[in-house]
Amino acid sequence: MWSKRELQRKIEDWLSEDVGAGDITSMSTIPESEEGVGIMYAKESGVLAGLPVAELVFEVIDPALAFKALVAEGSRIAKGEAIVEVSGSVRSILAGERLALNLLQRLSGIATLTSEYAAAIAGTHARVVDTRKTTPGLRMLEKYAVRVGGGHNHRFALYDAVMIKDNHIKGAGGITRAVTSARAAIPHTMKIEVETESLAEVEEALQAGADIIMLDNMPTDMMREAVSLIAGKAVVEASGGVNLSTIRAIAETGVDVISVGALTHSVRALDISLDLNQRKR
Amino acid sequence: MWSKRELQRKIEDWLSEDVGAGDITSMSTIPESEEGVGIMYAKESGVLAGLPVAELVFEVIDPALAFKALVAEGSRIAKGEAIVEVSGSVRSILAGERLALNLLQRLSGIATLTSEYAAAIAGTHARVVDTRKTTPGLRMLEKYAVRVGGGHNHRFALYDAVMIKDNHIKGAGGITRAVTSARAAIPHTMKIEVETESLAEVEEALQAGADIIMLDNMPTDMMREAVSLIAGKAVVEASGGVNLSTIRAIAETGVDVISVGALTHSVRALDISLDLNQRKR
Amino acid sequence: MWSKRELQRKIEDWLSEDVGAGDITSMSTIPESEEGVGIMYAKESGVLAGLPVAELVFEVIDPALAFKALVAEGSRIAKGEAIVEVSGSVRSILAGERLALNLLQRLSGIATLTSEYAAAIAGTHARVVDTRKTTPGLRMLEKYAVRVGGGHNHRFALYDAVMIKDNHIKGAGGITRAVTSARAAIPHTMKIEVETESLAEVEEALQAGADIIMLDNMPTDMMREAVSLIAGKAVVEASGGVNLSTIRAIAETGVDVISVGALTHSVRALDISLDLNQRKR
Amino acid sequence: MWSKRELQRKIEDWLSEDVGAGDITSMSTIPESEEGVGIMYAKESGVLAGLPVAELVFEVIDPALAFKALVAEGSRIAKGEAIVEVSGSVRSILAGERLALNLLQRLSGIATLTSEYAAAIAGTHARVVDTRKTTPGLRMLEKYAVRVGGGHNHRFALYDAVMIKDNHIKGAGGITRAVTSARAAIPHTMKIEVETESLAEVEEALQAGADIIMLDNMPTDMMREAVSLIAGKAVVEASGGVNLSTIRAIAETGVDVISVGALTHSVRALDISLDLNQRKR
Amino acid sequence: MWSKRELQRKIEDWLSEDVGAGDITSMSTIPESEEGVGIMYAKESGVLAGLPVAELVFEVIDPALAFKALVAEGSRIAKGEAIVEVSGSVRSILAGERLALNLLQRLSGIATLTSEYAAAIAGTHARVVDTRKTTPGLRMLEKYAVRVGGGHNHRFALYDAVMIKDNHIKGAGGITRAVTSARAAIPHTMKIEVETESLAEVEEALQAGADIIMLDNMPTDMMREAVSLIAGKAVVEASGGVNLSTIRAIAETGVDVISVGALTHSVRALDISLDLNQRKR
Amino acid sequence: MWSKRELQRKIEDWLSEDVGAGDITSMSTIPESEEGVGIMYAKESGVLAGLPVAELVFEVIDPALAFKALVAEGSRIAKGEAIVEVSGSVRSILAGERLALNLLQRLSGIATLTSEYAAAIAGTHARVVDTRKTTPGLRMLEKYAVRVGGGHNHRFALYDAVMIKDNHIKGAGGITRAVTSARAAIPHTMKIEVETESLAEVEEALQAGADIIMLDNMPTDMMREAVSLIAGKAVVEASGGVNLSTIRAIAETGVDVISVGALTHSVRALDISLDLNQRKR
Repeated sequence: MWSKRELQRKIEDWLSEDVGAGDITSMSTIPESEEGVGIMYAKESGVLAGLPVAELVFEVIDPALAFKALVAEGSRIAKGEAIVEVSGSVRSILAGERLALNLLQRLSGIATLTSEYAAAIAGTHARVVDTRKTTPGLRMLEKYAVRVGGGHNHRFALYDAVMIKDNHIKGAGGITRAVTSARAAIPHTMKIEVETESLAEVEEALQAGADIIMLDNMPTDMMREAVSLIAGKAVVEASGGVNLSTIRAIAETGVDVISVGALTHSVRALDISLDLNQRKR
Repeated sequence: MWSKRELQRKIEDWLSEDVGAGDITSMSTIPESEEGVGIMYAKESGVLAGLPVAELVFEVIDPALAFKALVAEGSRIAKGEAIVEVSGSVRSILAGERLALNLLQRLSGIATLTSEYAAAIAGTHARVVDTRKTTPGLRMLEKYAVRVGGGHNHRFALYDAVMIKDNHIKGAGGITRAVTSARAAIPHTMKIEVETESLAEVEEALQAGADIIMLDNMPTDMMREAVSLIAGKAVVEASGGVNLSTIRAIAETGVDVISVGALTHSVRALDISLDLNQRKR
Repeated sequence: MWSKRELQRKIEDWLSEDVGAGDITSMSTIPESEEGVGIMYAKESGVLAGLPVAELVFEVIDPALAFKALVAEGSRIAKGEAIVEVSGSVRSILAGERLALNLLQRLSGIATLTSEYAAAIAGTHARVVDTRKTTPGLRMLEKYAVRVGGGHNHRFALYDAVMIKDNHIKGAGGITRAVTSARAAIPHTMKIEVETESLAEVEEALQAGADIIMLDNMPTDMMREAVSLIAGKAVVEASGGVNLSTIRAIAETGVDVISVGALTHSVRALDISLDLNQRKR
Repeated sequence: MWSKRELQRKIEDWLSEDVGAGDITSMSTIPESEEGVGIMYAKESGVLAGLPVAELVFEVIDPALAFKALVAEGSRIAKGEAIVEVSGSVRSILAGERLALNLLQRLSGIATLTSEYAAAIAGTHARVVDTRKTTPGLRMLEKYAVRVGGGHNHRFALYDAVMIKDNHIKGAGGITRAVTSARAAIPHTMKIEVETESLAEVEEALQAGADIIMLDNMPTDMMREAVSLIAGKAVVEASGGVNLSTIRAIAETGVDVISVGALTHSVRALDISLDLNQRKR
Repeated sequence: MWSKRELQRKIEDWLSEDVGAGDITSMSTIPESEEGVGIMYAKESGVLAGLPVAELVFEVIDPALAFKALVAEGSRIAKGEAIVEVSGSVRSILAGERLALNLLQRLSGIATLTSEYAAAIAGTHARVVDTRKTTPGLRMLEKYAVRVGGGHNHRFALYDAVMIKDNHIKGAGGITRAVTSARAAIPHTMKIEVETESLAEVEEALQAGADIIMLDNMPTDMMREAVSLIAGKAVVEASGGVNLSTIRAIAETGVDVISVGALTHSVRALDISLDLNQRKR
Repeated sequence: MWSKRELQRKIEDWLSEDVGAGDITSMSTIPESEEGVGIMYAKESGVLAGLPVAELVFEVIDPALAFKALVAEGSRIAKGEAIVEVSGSVRSILAGERLALNLLQRLSGIATLTSEYAAAIAGTHARVVDTRKTTPGLRMLEKYAVRVGGGHNHRFALYDAVMIKDNHIKGAGGITRAVTSARAAIPHTMKIEVETESLAEVEEALQAGADIIMLDNMPTDMMREAVSLIAGKAVVEASGGVNLSTIRAIAETGVDVISVGALTHSVRALDISLDLNQRKR
C-alpha cells in the first residue's frame, strides 16, 4: 500500500477536486463552532475496505476530528451496521464526507467482489489475482482492496516483472529468443512470465526457463494437461474468460494463480452513507 | 472538460503509475525500430467516449505515433467495430495500450449507461444529471462522459453552487435562515439549491427564494404536487431511488432535472481491446 | 477563501522566492538561540485584512513562534496602533517579516479602498463587487480582502458563471441565441449574465431568460430605465466608469450590484511595519 | 528574468486560477472554428513592459495563435496607441485576454512609475533601485519591469547579499562584530551592506569593511557628509522617505544608489484593453 | 532507464539549482545573437556513459542547439578524444555546460569503474551487479551507467524484490518462517532473496524455497561449498569484501552474481571538458 | 543550507526512489509492533557531516522514532566509534537506513576530504573553497559538507555572482568591456570575478574594477607576482591543478582563496553502517 505521505498527497489533490476554494454551503450556513457526530452505516452487506484511507481523509481536512472505526478493516459487514464514527467540527465532517465515502464505497465494492471469487475456489490450491485493468490514479488502493478481500496481487506495473505476450514473441522472433533476451537484460531479482495459447508454447516456454507460464483462454482440459506438463517447474497462471461460474472448474485444473480483470474494472460501489447529528458548542 | 495542459499532466501521472521506470518487457524483447499498427475493437456494443483522452495518452508517450479515430466521439458502436487505429513504434503503442484502454473503457461505460437513462426519459421535459459520486481524480472526465452519453452535469464541486441539505438547515436554524444567510454571503452569480422532504419544506424553500428545489426521495404523487406548487419559480430536481425502471415515471411528474449517482459510482467498463500488427523497419 | 492546506503551499512558494537557500545575514550575525518580540504597527489608518494569512506565514516558517493578533480582522485601525505581536526566535521572525508585511499591506490596502466604496453607497440597495482584474496568483486572497472591506465578490473565474459579452453575442449570432445555447450546455446550478449597452439589449436579454443583466457604461438615466424595465426579473449589475465620486449616483438608480476593477488592480499598500526587541536566551 | 521554462510554469498556474476547468461562456456560445484578430490599445500614456510575458501567455494557451508586438518593449506609448495584435482562435484569445492584460497592466504600471523616478534624477550620478516590497510570486517580473523603466535592481532576496540592519547589529554585538562574523561565514563572492543612522555608524561600517553603506532616513546634509566620509571606499545607498519631490535633492548629495519601495508596492495599473474582431472560418 | 519525460523534469530541477534566475554573467557580457561550437574532450581514458542525458540537458535549455555525439555511448575513449559537438547560441551552451559535464563525468566514472570489475571476471560465469548504495535522486542514471559499463543491476529499490536479511529473520522467527510469510504476501511475480552467513543457513534458505541465496562475506572455500550445495536450485549471489583484487577468485567459486557497492558510492569523475569557439552572427 | 521544509521535500523524493510503494520485505516478515534500537558505527576514521540530514530522514519516515546523535556534527570520528542511536519501530528504522547512510557517507566523505585540504594550508592566509562541480540535486548539502569540513563556499550558482571567463571576454570584446558591461547590468549588491591567465590580464582586470581576480593555472611564481600587483585591491583566487601536494605552495603565494573541484566531484564515501537490535513489543 502507499506510504502514508504519498497517500496524503493524493488525498490533498482529491480534496482540491471536490472542495477546491471551499464548501460555500457550509461556510455560509453552519457556524464555525458547531460540532457533531457522524456515523457511517452500511446500506447493504459486504466486505469493508478502506478504513485507513477514510481516516486519513478526515485527518488531512482537520487533525482535530476524532475518527473511530467500529469494525475492523476487512470485516464482513451487515446491512444497517454502523462502521465508523467521526466527531468534531460539522464543517470539517461535511467537507470530507463525500471523498471518504467515494473511496470507501469503491474499495469495499472491490473487496466484496474479490471475496466472492475467493470463496468460489476455497479449498483448491489456486489464488485469485488482479490485473492492470485498474482505475488510473487508484491502482495502489485498488490492489490493496483486492488483498483485503482475500485475493492476491499480480505485478504492479510494467516495471516490476517481465510479461512476454504475443507481440513480444513476434518482436523477439520466438518464445525462446524472447525469454533469453529478457533474462540477459533484467536483474537477477526479477521474474519472467510467458503468455501461451497451446501446449507447444507451454513446452517451449518451460524449456526457455520461464518462471511463470500463463495459460491464455485455454479450455480446462488443456489447462489440466499444461499443469501436468509443467509439473511444478514454473508457476502456472490461468487467464481469460474467468467469472464466478467458471472459476471453480479452472481452479480444479491445478493452476496456481487465476487472474480476473473484473475485480477492478467493473465494480459496483458498496452502498454506505453518513448520518450526522450536530450540536452548537 | 479539462484544459489539454491539465489533462496532459494527469496522463503523465497515470503513466508513471503504469510504466514508471520503463516497460522492461518491451525494452528487452522488441527492437527499438520495430513499427506496427494497432486497431482498437469494441467487444460489445455501446456509446463511445474518451477518444480525445486516448489520443492524448499516445501523444504524451510518443508524439511520433499517428492516432486515427475511425468513428466519432459519442457514436453508438457495434460489437466488433473498429474504433481507433494507432500506428508507429511498437514499443510506444504497447506502453500506452493499457492506460488508453482503461480510460476509454470506463468513460464509454459511463456514456453507455447514461444514454440508457436518457433514452428512458426521451420526450419528457426532464434532463438526467450526474452527482459528486465520482472516482477521485477523474471527476472532470467522468462528467464529460455523462455529457457525451446525453446527460447533463450537476454542480462540479462544493465550490460552485450552494446546496442546502438537512445538516445546513439545522446549522442555520431553518430553511429560510439558511437561504438568507447563504444569499448574503455568496456572489450574485451563484445559485442556491435546497433539499426538501415535504411539501411544507418545498413551500418554505420557495418563499425563501431558492433557485433550485430538490425533491429528495419523494413519491411521484408528491413530486407532481411539488412541481405544481413551484410553478416555474424555481428549477425542480428529483433525487433518490432513481433507476432505469423508475426514471420515466419520475420524469413524467414534470420535474426539470433528475440526478442519478449510479451514472458514475457503479460502472461496468465497456469491453474494448487492441490488436497489434508489427513489422520490422 | 483558500483552504489552509493550499494557502500553506502558496506561502511555501513565496518563502522560496524571498528566503530561498536561507537568510544569510541572520544566519551569520544572530545567534540561533536569540529570542525576541516583534510588534507590527500601522503607520497610517485603514481597514486591516490578512491576519490569518500573516499568522500562517510565521507558522510555516517556525511552528514555535507565538502569533497574537492585537486587533480583530476587519478592524478599522488608527495610525500608530499596534496590530500584531509575534514572539520567539529572532531568526524566524526576521525570515517571515517581509512576506507577512507584503501580504498584510496589500490586503489591507484592498480592504481599505473597498470600505470607502462601500461607505459611499451606504443606505442604498446596491452592493460593491470586485472583478477578475486581480494580481495573478493572489485572486483568492484579494477577493477575500474585498469581503473583509465590506464588498462582495463577482464570479471567481471563467469556470463558475457564464458572462456573455459582445464577442460571445457575435459568435452565437445574437443575445437570444447565445443565452439559449449556453443554457442548454451548462449545469442547472449555474447562472447566465449578459452584458448590455442599450435598453433594446436589456429587453432582449430579459426575454432570453438571463439571470443577471449587466449595464455597461450606461448613463444613470438609462440605468434607471433599465432597472424599471427589468423589474426584479433579473439581478442588475452596473459596470464601467465607476469611481468614488460617481458610485453613489449609480447606486441610487436602483441597481443591485456595482462592479469596480480598481478595488484590486490599482492598490496602494497600507503602510505597516514591524519593530523587534530581542534578548539572548 | 525568469527562464522561459519557469515563467511558463507560473503562467500555467495563473491560467488554472482564471480559466480552470474551462471558459464555459466561450465554449457554449462561440464555435470552435471561429477566428479573429485582437488589438491591444493603451488607454493612457506610459512605458510599456511585459510584452514577452503576454506573448508567452498566449503561446501557453494555444501555440497556433500569432502574437505580434506593434511597439518595442520599454517604449513610451501614447494614449490610444495600438501595441499588440494577436490573431487566431477567438476562444483562445478570450481565454488569455484577462491574464495577459493583468500582467501587462501591472508591469507597465511599474515601468511607468520607475521612469518618472529615473527622469527626476537624470544627470546625477545616482541610480534608482527597487526593494523586496514586491508582490508575492511576482518578484522576478516586477524587478524586470523596474529595469525596463530605467531603474536598477537591489539584491533579489535574503540569500544573495548580506544586509546588516539594526537587529543584526544587536544580535552580533555591534557593527564591527556583525561585519566580521558575516565576512567569515559567506562566500568571497558576496557583498555586505550595513544600514546606518548616524555618521558614527557610517564611520564604523567603513572601518569594518562594509562593501555598501546604507544611509537610512538621513537628512540630505548628513548624507552629503557621509558621502564625503566614505570617499568611494564603499557604495553609498540612500533609503527612506524617498518620493518624486525629494529624490533629486537626495541624488545631488552624491549617493550612488537610491532605493524606493513604492516602485513595486503601490502601483497603479496602466490602462490597456483588447478589442476583438471575429470572423467565422 | 528513466522515461524521457521524467528525466526531463529532473533536468529542469537541476537547471534550477545551477542556473536559477539566470546566468547573469552571460546575459551581461555576451550578445544574445552570438553563436558558437563547443567540443567536449576526454582529458583521460575511460568508458563513456551519459550521452543521451547530456543531449537532453541541452535540448531542455534550448531546442535550437544542435547536439552531435562523435563517439557511441559505451565506447572506450582515449585521452584527448573529442566526444561531443554542440553548436548554437553561446549563451545556451554556457548555461548547460556545467550540468551536462557534471552528469557525463559522474556516469562515465561509474561505467569506467564497472568495466574494470567486469573485465576482472571475464570468462567466468558470474555477472557484476550494483547495490542500493547510490546517490539520492540519481539511482536510475547510476544503474544505467553500470549497465553501460558492462555490469548488471540488482533490485531497484525496496519495492521490487524481497531481500531477507538478519533483522527480518529475527523478526519473523527464522529463515523458513520469513520466506514462507513473504511468499504468502507477495505477488507470484516477485522473487525472494535470503542473506546467509553459514552453510546451515544456505541449506535452510534452500529448503524454504528462496529464489536467490546471498552468501554474505563468506571465504571463497565456503562459497564454493555453498554453490555446490545449491546446485542450480537458486541463483547464488556473493556480497561483501569485493574489490578488484578479490573479485576474480570469488567469481571462480561458481557464484552467479557478485554485488559491489563501490560501483556507485565512491566514484571518481572521469575528467571531461568543453572548449567553445564563438562567432558573432 | 536548505530550509528544513525544502530539505524535507527532497527527502520525500529520495524516499520515493528507494522505498516507493513500500518495503515489501519488512512488511511481510517483521510484525508492525516490533521495536528496536539501531546504532550507526564508523567503520573508518574521518570527519562526520550530515547528522541533521540523517535525523530528518528518520523524522520524515516516522515522527515517533527517537534519533540521538552520540557525537557532534563536524567531529573527527574514530574507526569503530558509535555516532548515532535511533530507536523505535523496526520497520521504520529499516525503511530509512539506506537513505540516511547514503547521505551521511557521502557528506562525511566530502567533509573528510575538505578537512585534509584545510589542514594542508593551516597557518597560511588562504581559504579552501568548492566549485560548481557538485552532484546534480545535492549542491546545497555538498556545499554544507565543505563548510563542516573546514572549507568555505564559492558562489552557489550562475545567478549569485558574475564570473567572467574566456568566452565572456571574447563575447564582450575584452576584459574592460566585459567588466563595464556587467557592472552596469547587475545590482550594486553583486560582485564581479574575472578569470586571468597572464599578468597583463590581471592588470587589466584590476584596472577594470574586478572585485575578485582568479589566477587560472598559473605557476606559483606568477601567482606571487599577481598577488603583489593586486596588492589588496581585489580578492585573489587560485584555481587549477590543485591537489594535496600542491596546495600548500599555492597558499604560500599569498592568494586569498583556493578553489578545488575534487572536494565534490570525486568523493569516496566514508564507511558507516547500522547495527539493529530488535525486541517484540
